[in-house]
Amino acid sequence: MLQDKNPHRTDIGKLGEFGLIETLTKDIEIKNPSTIKGVGDDAAVLEFKDMETLVSTDLLVEGVHFDLAYFPLKHLGYKAAIVNFSDIYAMNGTPTQLLVALALSNRFPLEAIEEIYEGIKLACRIYNVDLVGGDTTSSRSGLILNPTIVGAVEKEKITYRSGAEPNDLIVVTGDLGAAYMGLLVLQRENETFKANPQHQPDLSPYAYVVERQLKPEARKEIPPLLKELDIQPTAMIDISDGLSSEILHITKQSGVGARIYAEKIPIDPQTVLTADEFHISELTAALNGGEDYELLMTISQKDYEKIQHRKEFAVIGHITEDKGAYLITQDNQKIELKAQGWNALKK
Amino acid sequence: MLQDKNPHRTDIGKLGEFGLIETLTKDIEIKNPSTIKGVGDDAAVLEFKDMETLVSTDLLVEGVHFDLAYFPLKHLGYKAAIVNFSDIYAMNGTPTQLLVALALSNRFPLEAIEEIYEGIKLACRIYNVDLVGGDTTSSRSGLILNPTIVGAVEKEKITYRSGAEPNDLIVVTGDLGAAYMGLLVLQRENETFKANPQHQPDLSPYAYVVERQLKPEARKEIPPLLKELDIQPTAMIDISDGLSSEILHITKQSGVGARIYAEKIPIDPQTVLTADEFHISELTAALNGGEDYELLMTISQKDYEKIQHRKEFAVIGHITEDKGAYLITQDNQKIELKAQGWNALKK
Repeated sequence: MLQDKNPHRTDIGKLGEFGLIETLTKDIEIKNPSTIKGVGDDAAVLEFKDMETLVSTDLLVEGVHFDLAYFPLKHLGYKAAIVNFSDIYAMNGTPTQLLVALALSNRFPLEAIEEIYEGIKLACRIYNVDLVGGDTTSSRSGLILNPTIVGAVEKEKITYRSGAEPNDLIVVTGDLGAAYMGLLVLQRENETFKANPQHQPDLSPYAYVVERQLKPEARKEIPPLLKELDIQPTAMIDISDGLSSEILHITKQSGVGARIYAEKIPIDPQTVLTADEFHISELTAALNGGEDYELLMTISQKDYEKIQHRKEFAVIGHITEDKGAYLITQDNQKIELKAQGWNALKK
Repeated sequence: MLQDKNPHRTDIGKLGEFGLIETLTKDIEIKNPSTIKGVGDDAAVLEFKDMETLVSTDLLVEGVHFDLAYFPLKHLGYKAAIVNFSDIYAMNGTPTQLLVALALSNRFPLEAIEEIYEGIKLACRIYNVDLVGGDTTSSRSGLILNPTIVGAVEKEKITYRSGAEPNDLIVVTGDLGAAYMGLLVLQRENETFKANPQHQPDLSPYAYVVERQLKPEARKEIPPLLKELDIQPTAMIDISDGLSSEILHITKQSGVGARIYAEKIPIDPQTVLTADEFHISELTAALNGGEDYELLMTISQKDYEKIQHRKEFAVIGHITEDKGAYLITQDNQKIELKAQGWNALKK
């Protein structure tokens, strides 16, 4: 549907693995002093000295995490990188090096892989990350992308999921639920297109929610901002599976409970309008939708003044000593939070 | 064929992603002081201080890199780990942490994933590597395994592919070609089994070559031995795609040429016998077969005495100033080496 059909097709098989890697990596520039050696040997060589090293990996599978019918390849590469960068920000660190493993079937020409790599390289440029390695191979069917991200963090700044204390404030960045509504819009348009290929979708009323789905950003400004404000969060996680699921990770690993308040959850007006159109609650999108890549953190009450007037943050509740995690609705109902987020294995 | 059919099947979907990760990671013990935080947060936290950090990733795809008809799942997990460890030894380093991303379709029950993890954990125990993270998700079809390995190396010990100098000796560890012959035996037995399911294969005459295919080991003793012998190789690479291909990597990246001598290439007698049976040259298996996970290195001539009587090493040729890379046969023919190794993209 939205995918650019490139008329020029170069068969990957003819190029061979080494030729392919050369084509994809020839214009890579190294920007981080911690990158000693990037692509081209058995392993990348990195040097962190006084910093702790962070490593994380996220697998994206066609037909499970994305549908190429409405996901442009360049955006896919960009998103695959962003999703991994987000894990490093969630530790209060800085992503520095990316490795990308990619498996794809013969139906993809070289131009398709180049588009994916364009997206990956664009994300690396914007987020100042070095592409230092990876692996490219064939799959029997479909496209699989597995980026691994390496980052650095000062020892005293590391923020785990396990440090939340009773009475800490629960804070989120940005707004929630939009990426999920964007997904529903894209899926609907794709169905319409399949039924009627002449149909030209008008996505402009959904520009924000669609962009949150197709081209999410990671909150790179948050760790430096926390430093500037002199705030050390007690716990932090990125919101990839929906707010409910992430709150439960923090409460479980910290051995505490939580209360969050429905009217405090930041939701964009376009998310509300789109949710209305789909006859679902915007709260459901925020709590269970996922893929927002915002940061959820807990901070000490003493830090409240520091964030009070900052538009980047919204205080949505607090940590409790008793272990349940609840949403308090506007009519004061208490609803237990459940991890109903993204569960790729249930399909 | 060889695969253990476990009668007990637990549906992964019922367990959910978090339940699955908990099941797979509950008995993980951390052994390396460089592992500050393993599984359970947005990223693993590692600390290397005065050492350089090494990172590498290798993707294994069902139907491309392995066939579950003859590859037991536990062995698959073991091999996936070993293949990655080998990349770190090839840098003259020590693997320290492993992350495993895994995608699999619903046809696999929990017990299948547990078997894969048993193999991964066994490899980690034997090689003293900490399993610190990963990602588990579903695929539309088939099994995909993507381990990422992190390792450490002293700065002055790092061995790239690019340092070979004219007159350096070309040295390999162990013997070559066995894993490829093991693959041919397994493929043949599998075909026989498909034609006649009553057929009971007798693999005992092929025990060594089959083991080299199904349960390869990485040469973990080589970096410490090089240190003990006071040898700093000028270049090193692991033999995953066949000797030809690896020699060409070294000569290309070092800007040199090479001569290797057919009669010097170490090949096990069982590899020779099996190659005879399949009417192929054992040299072809050694040069183009791949998956040996031995180390290929170049060393200065002054170090020759140090390895002369060590059974771990075989000198197979030397580096030349002129850029061609050639095999010299026993009847003194000069054959140009070509990268005909494993090329998953050609399929």
